[in-house]
Amino acid sequence: MIRFECDYNEGAHERILQRLISTNMEQTSGYGKDAHCDRARSLIRQACENEKADVHFLVGGTQTNTTVIASILRPYQGVIAATSGHIAVHETGAIEATGHKVITVPSEDGKITSDQVKAVYDAHWNDAAPEHCVQPGMVYISQPTENGTMYSKAELQALFDVSRQCGLPFFIDGARLGYALASRNCDMTLADLARLCDVFYIGGTKIGALMGEAVVILNDKLKPDFRYMIKQKGGLLAKGRLLGIQFETLFEDGLYLEISQHAVDMAMLIHDSLVEQGITFLYDSPTNQQFPILPDDLLQDLRSRYSFTFWEKVSDTHSVVRFCTSWATQRENVDSLIRDISHALNKLKACV
Amino acid sequence: MIRFECDYNEGAHERILQRLISTNMEQTSGYGKDAHCDRARSLIRQACENEKADVHFLVGGTQTNTTVIASILRPYQGVIAATSGHIAVHETGAIEATGHKVITVPSEDGKITSDQVKAVYDAHWNDAAPEHCVQPGMVYISQPTENGTMYSKAELQALFDVSRQCGLPFFIDGARLGYALASRNCDMTLADLARLCDVFYIGGTKIGALMGEAVVILNDKLKPDFRYMIKQKGGLLAKGRLLGIQFETLFEDGLYLEISQHAVDMAMLIHDSLVEQGITFLYDSPTNQQFPILPDDLLQDLRSRYSFTFWEKVSDTHSVVRFCTSWATQRENVDSLIRDISHALNKLKACV
Amino acid sequence: MIRFECDYNEGAHERILQRLISTNMEQTSGYGKDAHCDRARSLIRQACENEKADVHFLVGGTQTNTTVIASILRPYQGVIAATSGHIAVHETGAIEATGHKVITVPSEDGKITSDQVKAVYDAHWNDAAPEHCVQPGMVYISQPTENGTMYSKAELQALFDVSRQCGLPFFIDGARLGYALASRNCDMTLADLARLCDVFYIGGTKIGALMGEAVVILNDKLKPDFRYMIKQKGGLLAKGRLLGIQFETLFEDGLYLEISQHAVDMAMLIHDSLVEQGITFLYDSPTNQQFPILPDDLLQDLRSRYSFTFWEKVSDTHSVVRFCTSWATQRENVDSLIRDISHALNKLKACV
Amino acid sequence: MIRFECDYNEGAHERILQRLISTNMEQTSGYGKDAHCDRARSLIRQACENEKADVHFLVGGTQTNTTVIASILRPYQGVIAATSGHIAVHETGAIEATGHKVITVPSEDGKITSDQVKAVYDAHWNDAAPEHCVQPGMVYISQPTENGTMYSKAELQALFDVSRQCGLPFFIDGARLGYALASRNCDMTLADLARLCDVFYIGGTKIGALMGEAVVILNDKLKPDFRYMIKQKGGLLAKGRLLGIQFETLFEDGLYLEISQHAVDMAMLIHDSLVEQGITFLYDSPTNQQFPILPDDLLQDLRSRYSFTFWEKVSDTHSVVRFCTSWATQRENVDSLIRDISHALNKLKACV
Repeated sequence: MIRFECDYNEGAHERILQRLISTNMEQTSGYGKDAHCDRARSLIRQACENEKADVHFLVGGTQTNTTVIASILRPYQGVIAATSGHIAVHETGAIEATGHKVITVPSEDGKITSDQVKAVYDAHWNDAAPEHCVQPGMVYISQPTENGTMYSKAELQALFDVSRQCGLPFFIDGARLGYALASRNCDMTLADLARLCDVFYIGGTKIGALMGEAVVILNDKLKPDFRYMIKQKGGLLAKGRLLGIQFETLFEDGLYLEISQHAVDMAMLIHDSLVEQGITFLYDSPTNQQFPILPDDLLQDLRSRYSFTFWEKVSDTHSVVRFCTSWATQRENVDSLIRDISHALNKLKACV
Repeated sequence: MIRFECDYNEGAHERILQRLISTNMEQTSGYGKDAHCDRARSLIRQACENEKADVHFLVGGTQTNTTVIASILRPYQGVIAATSGHIAVHETGAIEATGHKVITVPSEDGKITSDQVKAVYDAHWNDAAPEHCVQPGMVYISQPTENGTMYSKAELQALFDVSRQCGLPFFIDGARLGYALASRNCDMTLADLARLCDVFYIGGTKIGALMGEAVVILNDKLKPDFRYMIKQKGGLLAKGRLLGIQFETLFEDGLYLEISQHAVDMAMLIHDSLVEQGITFLYDSPTNQQFPILPDDLLQDLRSRYSFTFWEKVSDTHSVVRFCTSWATQRENVDSLIRDISHALNKLKACV
Repeated sequence: MIRFECDYNEGAHERILQRLISTNMEQTSGYGKDAHCDRARSLIRQACENEKADVHFLVGGTQTNTTVIASILRPYQGVIAATSGHIAVHETGAIEATGHKVITVPSEDGKITSDQVKAVYDAHWNDAAPEHCVQPGMVYISQPTENGTMYSKAELQALFDVSRQCGLPFFIDGARLGYALASRNCDMTLADLARLCDVFYIGGTKIGALMGEAVVILNDKLKPDFRYMIKQKGGLLAKGRLLGIQFETLFEDGLYLEISQHAVDMAMLIHDSLVEQGITFLYDSPTNQQFPILPDDLLQDLRSRYSFTFWEKVSDTHSVVRFCTSWATQRENVDSLIRDISHALNKLKACV
Repeated sequence: MIRFECDYNEGAHERILQRLISTNMEQTSGYGKDAHCDRARSLIRQACENEKADVHFLVGGTQTNTTVIASILRPYQGVIAATSGHIAVHETGAIEATGHKVITVPSEDGKITSDQVKAVYDAHWNDAAPEHCVQPGMVYISQPTENGTMYSKAELQALFDVSRQCGLPFFIDGARLGYALASRNCDMTLADLARLCDVFYIGGTKIGALMGEAVVILNDKLKPDFRYMIKQKGGLLAKGRLLGIQFETLFEDGLYLEISQHAVDMAMLIHDSLVEQGITFLYDSPTNQQFPILPDDLLQDLRSRYSFTFWEKVSDTHSVVRFCTSWATQRENVDSLIRDISHALNKLKACV
């Protein structure tokens, strides 16, 4: 079975493993107070071109979203997100479990607009009795989105501007951030993104690390006491150095972007090949997740050799599926997938 | 600096690292649904002599305590624990953050008694208006305790009996469980312990693993839907296999107990040497944490070469400190510590 | 100013006030453990034709919804409701504040269908990884709805059947229940409704009482320890007798339905008069809330003498507003409103 | 049965009932936005000599404590209170249900000291890893306490000073506030108290009202959005005017203090009579709750005619009980109680 079902099918980049081995018997303090974490924090601050940013390491995405959001909202506030946002659908109500509503706005492709944010804000404050409703308290987006789509720099700027104007902290979930930054039509750097939000995180789990997400807090008001939140929400790893060592490795010489680039290149091979054969896609994704619309018969055949994610049926004969590439995807497997799909499509055409 | 301040100063046992390397490019499903997790679950069930036990892997201790406790209690219930229990003092209110009171009972040495549990239960139900008070809903202990002390099999039996009698699930926090099982006066096996509670966990973070705790659910009523709780509380690791691989390694040929034994042996060297020199201890600990009462002057000197934890002052001239050993503690460091303390004590005696 | 903006503009039915006076210096136990509460509970059980029902008195609607829902759901479960459901939009996230998601389904008129419930249930359990999503844990509807519409007995039966089939407790918010039971096309009695759900409440605040809602628990599994929930959520009134006395008065000789009937009659006068004049309505409401679509100019004029609720704009020239009647609505005020609207409509027609 | 078991055995002061009747058919806006609430707010501000205070009306004590505390604390903070504080023992974990620990400090008589607050604060911030513990976030006391005891002005000043110094909002639970202000050794006015805290509430339920507590927020930082909190926590009464009317009546011409005085006078009759007969008390209470230590035989006899609260056994032959008086206590009942106890004591002495 060759797996394209997600971007966390393998372990970690070998350089990370090597570093874990070489540092294994070092004795360090716990809970992120060690030299590796310090260095990783420093490298990330440099990459963000912000020497004052606070950087914290957590273990996983749901945990990170919950911790950041719960640290920001007042008890009667909610977080604005796309209906398809990870926090809205795939975290088993983790946000609600901390007492907060996810205020969803509709989205076709996983993205939301500054106009939507403004509309939610205005609707609330124009209500004759706003205190009977959840108050919008912050804005959440994913870059790239859960659908592989990506915000342009101008779109982020517009979202950040409207958030500022409304007094709403703007949080970017970067579980797959590298795959956006490495995409061929990306018009921003990590530093650009760090200038266009109040807090975001850099995903490690899906990009080369065993596990780990680096939260970067830009807004001074959101900085105090964040470690209390991490500890309470179960994210303060005893051997915090494990996260430090991994992010150190990912950020000391560009490894993070380098392996992200590989994943995107692999995804584009699949994408371009399918386009060539006239296949259309549910979402226009320039990143590591591809959502082609394919004949059910073809998919049925494919399943014997490849794993991928069923997304939705679009007609009696066709479905959308998701193929993910990652830092670990091997070129030969991609070639094989392309070949097998191509072959199957040709056979189908021949039948008609 | 030689570190004795805690039992998570190093990385992982080398066999675990080797296994991570050898499995690194295997492609597996996420979230604990892979062959390594399956095998680890099976090995743990065998070690517990309970083929029906549910086994789940989480990342850290606070997360595990929170997830287990929140999965058991009804909204108006609390968990009975020692005033010194980890959940009562060192988890930043994680239990309260899920809506539940920690109902503390006093303890001199970290242990609680079945009589104390019964008394809390009776006091509640004998109240004329119990519904104005938090209802006791379960019992929490640590084995060994945060003070290094240990429950005997008879004590566990008594706690389990009274819990059953009161209808209270009995949960054992085993963050350092190996260090209890390997202690020289331990009168129980892992399988014994698994027969004497409703749910417990086997700590990996402090005993050889990079991170990871294995929750073992014995009581059928507590089994359904536990994965929802893990996901919501941020403990469902995307690359769940990392936990599976580690527990597989720890349990396939007795490594867990073997390295626990080493830690306890090292602790006993320190303990016996100090006893020989007339030093007394705050707690009578047969496990990897030792709490000697030492002269402040000596401690001041020791700090230049060793790290350890200040516990409390007991007089104008003496303090209690904590020395921890672990699976990774090196004999030569222990010898050096013993020698330096011994030397200092002799100097002090000479002065008098 | 003549007020039609809501159904809680006045105090209480005079018989309730008289009873409060006549019982004022009686000495009773607190917290609902008094003879008045006992008698009220008994009268409600009789009206529900269910001698085993548990009846509890709480103070307000948001409190009641929160207490009931939080008492039922497991931490990872959510409650299915219409997007327009009171708990979804007008309770400042009270449900989320207890840790639970409101799983909304679209609704044009405030009602949801058994098919919608089934679809949510099936979608969850057919998911390949349901534990990543909030589990549907119960069903919430309002009878009548927030839009004045009403479920028929067959619709309730279908909802109850599907809920049973899915193992989801079915909860009916009856903040305005009397106004449904008294409506001219109501095909059910209170006892019928009590046979078609697991738990519901009978609203007092909007129907004759100073305040107070009577929760009726039919399902034995939902009965234990409910008083703990009431106390914790702040609903256990010290002078519980106040609620007992009021529900005693409302239920001892049919007062509840009698005054509900009056409100509906008043609403129908408005409704029928507007229909006669060709006015259409946003919702087809047979209860005490009416949502006519009226010219903005007319509404502007009306505002100098009457208060009512702006609902939404439907065109450049027309808006929907809400008129509420209640047990306290005076016929002469209704006549005056009808006359003034009629007069204004005629004037507008004359202009055209 | 003559009841002395609590201070909410009767309905409301007759002037309040009269006012409810005379205003009953007035039409007002809901949720506390009416002229009665406005006037009551204004009267309370005058009594507090603070024109900028925010005044809000809630229904009950547990609800009020929960709402105020949850509005102040950050998610990782707890509230410092006496072990005997109402929030620590008699609210079914309502505070914990909003996510917060009650950090208890020991108390013999229900009072806590500024030194205790300072010690908790210092212990937290001197900890090497404070983020592993709940951060003290505010201070809660009751005036008078649950044991009838009272803080002097100097004690309040010291608590307020230390709270300020530590940056901890200081909250006074005044469920029985009138009974403190009216006590014979009270050295403060309502206005004094309002100068010595950040927020407090004036209890109505136990002093003349049917129900209702008036929260007074002095500290500007605690004022924004408090109505959202009230709504979410179920305390925003639809017919808010009911609370306005009651507090208007209590504060327009001194009724609140006048009826508090009566309760204290009645309590002092009991107190002085028992002292005269050599009876000692568990707490030195100058307010409406008295805790005498009496022979069990005597108490057994007394129970046939009087209700009172068993507090605790102090020896094989004696127990502490609680007698409460209130605004509604009748002199003849007090005389009768005193006579019966006196008679019984004399009989017992004669036996010896």
